[in-house]
Amino acid sequence: MKAIGKLDWAFSAGKIPLQSIGEEPKFTSNDKLAILNTSEEKAIIELFIFYENRKPMGPYSVTIKPLRLKKIRFNDLIDPEAIMLEQNYSCYIKTNVKVVIQFSRMNTGNNKVSEMSSMAFPVES
Amino acid sequence: MKAIGKLDWAFSAGKIPLQSIGEEPKFTSNDKLAILNTSEEKAIIELFIFYENRKPMGPYSVTIKPLRLKKIRFNDLIDPEAIMLEQNYSCYIKTNVKVVIQFSRMNTGNNKVSEMSSMAFPVES
Amino acid sequence: MKAIGKLDWAFSAGKIPLQSIGEEPKFTSNDKLAILNTSEEKAIIELFIFYENRKPMGPYSVTIKPLRLKKIRFNDLIDPEAIMLEQNYSCYIKTNVKVVIQFSRMNTGNNKVSEMSSMAFPVES
Amino acid sequence: MKAIGKLDWAFSAGKIPLQSIGEEPKFTSNDKLAILNTSEEKAIIELFIFYENRKPMGPYSVTIKPLRLKKIRFNDLIDPEAIMLEQNYSCYIKTNVKVVIQFSRMNTGNNKVSEMSSMAFPVES
Repeated sequence: MKAIGKLDWAFSAGKIPLQSIGEEPKFTSNDKLAILNTSEEKAIIELFIFYENRKPMGPYSVTIKPLRLKKIRFNDLIDPEAIMLEQNYSCYIKTNVKVVIQFSRMNTGNNKVSEMSSMAFPVES
Repeated sequence: MKAIGKLDWAFSAGKIPLQSIGEEPKFTSNDKLAILNTSEEKAIIELFIFYENRKPMGPYSVTIKPLRLKKIRFNDLIDPEAIMLEQNYSCYIKTNVKVVIQFSRMNTGNNKVSEMSSMAFPVES
Repeated sequence: MKAIGKLDWAFSAGKIPLQSIGEEPKFTSNDKLAILNTSEEKAIIELFIFYENRKPMGPYSVTIKPLRLKKIRFNDLIDPEAIMLEQNYSCYIKTNVKVVIQFSRMNTGNNKVSEMSSMAFPVES
Repeated sequence: MKAIGKLDWAFSAGKIPLQSIGEEPKFTSNDKLAILNTSEEKAIIELFIFYENRKPMGPYSVTIKPLRLKKIRFNDLIDPEAIMLEQNYSCYIKTNVKVVIQFSRMNTGNNKVSEMSSMAFPVES
């Protein structure tokens, strides 16, 4: 199958929620990417994290097998350093093959639940 | 009326929720597409489902009458095989005439409700 | 100020919720468009509504003053006929000057609240 | 790092919620932009606010340091005048360097919570 999507993506309104309530893992707070690699090649991905009051950090490296989807939880990105909890961040994502990226958050602190999701922004490259 | 939209679409953050609460069918958990065919022709649609740890499955075939909207619940896609519940999946959609596609989820498990919706990503073809 | 946006827009996942709970009008169920006209001209807008099992209806006519925003509640579109409640619908929107359109829903039936919003799809014209 | 994104953005469905409930600041009602500046230059940003029944107001001026993210709460925009609470508004945003903009709202009035977020619309310039 052919590669579909874009080589460069970004989103700006990231924030890893600190608190969770409810049944795990269905209602665990999270901030994550869903990346689809429809190509026959391994996708080699670099993420760069931007903050309000610190210099950018990265690249964080992720690979995705051919013809597979991968979910990336920002909590799990720890090399070169963990992403700050409860801090606003933005993310720029570069790949070697075209991919499709969606950004989602579920926030279940304070006995409420909210969820949002949008396609990341396909930067022209 | 002329055909509007794109021939190729994708989204990456699919997941069919398992549990529901509340009054049916208003608050039934679901994962679905809304596809608009403004053309005078029947739209012949092929969906391909991608997973994290299994090879892709498809095509799933759907048709839409001229000048009509169709809602597709992923739970209802059973040929060539049912889509896994509570598994992350992505979807690539191809059509013969231009269509407009929006992806939505309502999740009502655990006595909470969350809903999200976004346009699918219009892949250039 | 110059006109910004597009002349043709569409979204596919419309549905006017029937029930509401809570304080009016903050938490009234609704399905609506927010249309921004940054131009110095009156925007003359035509909406076409598509259904699953009926032929399309329209045009519904709306105008927007120069340099103004207008919110359009689908419940209020009654000429040439009211839009069906609790029926899935899609919408195609044409204008004479470029506008920017966002689609939103708040659903407050069944003692729950969910809200979603996304930019409509900018059809190339 | 290179500048990514667009020079002109807009969204149409703004509304600053009046009421909040719950733990501060996690569940404070808000309407905000997250703007990412990946360039090596300071981003100089002008926002123009459009209303339903008043003439547009602006420019509101904001700057973003090189390689940083900035969150802008619409409640905080007070020069040339505060933005009306509980009034529908739209926003057009111009910058000198490419940026990426996401628009989000959290609404926690009436003992409910809803959250939505979408990329702003990238106006071609």
